[in-house]
Amino acid sequence: MEAPIGLFDSGFGGLTVMKEIVKLLPNENLIYLGDTANLPYGNKSPETVIRCARANAAFLLERGIKLLIIPCHTACCHALEILKQELPIPIVGVIEPGLQLVHNFRRIAILGTTSTIESGLYQTQIRKQNSNVEIFAKACPLFVPLIEEGFHEHITAKLIAQHYLDELKGKIDAALLACTHYPLLRKVLDEELGANVALIEPAVGCAQIVKKILVEKNQLRIQKEKPHYQFFASDDPEKFRKFGKLFFGTVIEKVEKNKKL
Amino acid sequence: MEAPIGLFDSGFGGLTVMKEIVKLLPNENLIYLGDTANLPYGNKSPETVIRCARANAAFLLERGIKLLIIPCHTACCHALEILKQELPIPIVGVIEPGLQLVHNFRRIAILGTTSTIESGLYQTQIRKQNSNVEIFAKACPLFVPLIEEGFHEHITAKLIAQHYLDELKGKIDAALLACTHYPLLRKVLDEELGANVALIEPAVGCAQIVKKILVEKNQLRIQKEKPHYQFFASDDPEKFRKFGKLFFGTVIEKVEKNKKL
Repeated sequence: MEAPIGLFDSGFGGLTVMKEIVKLLPNENLIYLGDTANLPYGNKSPETVIRCARANAAFLLERGIKLLIIPCHTACCHALEILKQELPIPIVGVIEPGLQLVHNFRRIAILGTTSTIESGLYQTQIRKQNSNVEIFAKACPLFVPLIEEGFHEHITAKLIAQHYLDELKGKIDAALLACTHYPLLRKVLDEELGANVALIEPAVGCAQIVKKILVEKNQLRIQKEKPHYQFFASDDPEKFRKFGKLFFGTVIEKVEKNKKL
Repeated sequence: MEAPIGLFDSGFGGLTVMKEIVKLLPNENLIYLGDTANLPYGNKSPETVIRCARANAAFLLERGIKLLIIPCHTACCHALEILKQELPIPIVGVIEPGLQLVHNFRRIAILGTTSTIESGLYQTQIRKQNSNVEIFAKACPLFVPLIEEGFHEHITAKLIAQHYLDELKGKIDAALLACTHYPLLRKVLDEELGANVALIEPAVGCAQIVKKILVEKNQLRIQKEKPHYQFFASDDPEKFRKFGKLFFGTVIEKVEKNKKL
């Protein structure tokens, strides 16, 4: 099926998930929308995040997507269930794959933006699947700007990680990276939390769920022509193009500006 | 004249200017709008900042303000001249007072957000008033999130200041704090740049210009009843109320949500 898969995120982070989709589903056409005019979502209220998420989804639906991925934890926490009820296509978020991956751990840290942690969604869902767990939910609001400004290998990233995570040392078996930016801090987090703590990223699991749905619905794209990747940003496409490479791993050739979101 | 003075900013920073207005013009009624749904402005494009600035100004004009203050350098760089042409009331920004204060220095650093520095406005204006100056323009994009997350006295604030400012050491006589958040980093900047470098804040100068205009137009409020301060935020009024104190210096009792901006 030629129709593309759509993804939206507040900015760049979701490109780490798109990278996994490209790996697992290399034939699919993809449209990515970075809502950079409204970033970040992580310190905004549920109401504002829901308004942005609806506008993003509408923009992608107009482009005929067959499935929507929301590779942004904050948007998933506030808007995933709402959009599932409102939209006529399958929607895959990053919460479910994260939950599956922490299933076998008993002492779990959830690291995310303020808005994600305050939503309490991960805490509730993890407890629902296993009431016998210890949960440590920790907002790490400076991680995103540090990464977006290229400081993820700077000494300050380590010091700020210490500030946030010192209290978790020796108390956890796994840390769920509930923000798509955080994999760029993997080295720092490994050093800070110790090698015996599993760092859980939902990106691969998300791609697997998408594949499963498309197989079941017989909607995989099987044409042999090269797939088409389209990128949109709601602010400053050129900045998105340049900076996106850090997250996507390969050069992004062209980014279009979408209308005001 | 009972009509209030209006102020808008992307968030909290402009409250440091409002504080100076309260000191110099203690009888004036004031309305402050923090456009927290769209913050930060400092990493957004001119087009997006202009769109937000127009919406903010319209919101305040509807409330009958007699004068508009834009205590946000990024908004001033992109939208001050545009709004001056479009609106029927006097508008005071933070650029002119800053320029007046650096007038007697020969080696000047401009510290601001990426968007402010990239606009090139300060560089052009400073050179216009004195072609015989050395200008060092430096974007310091992590300062705002550090301050907004309460890290302005943390060791990382010092290390990040070093990262940005090391190259300026010994080369400047004055540093213009071209972002209303930066006064909260005064101690760190003093240590990093040295006591012989003047740190220039335009807030007081901005208040003086406002007073001069109101005196000339005979629009000062002279009633003896206590003035009325109204606060609006476009996202999460309660967060604005709590966090605003850090910038305003006194407790903010009530913040109202404005309509979607």
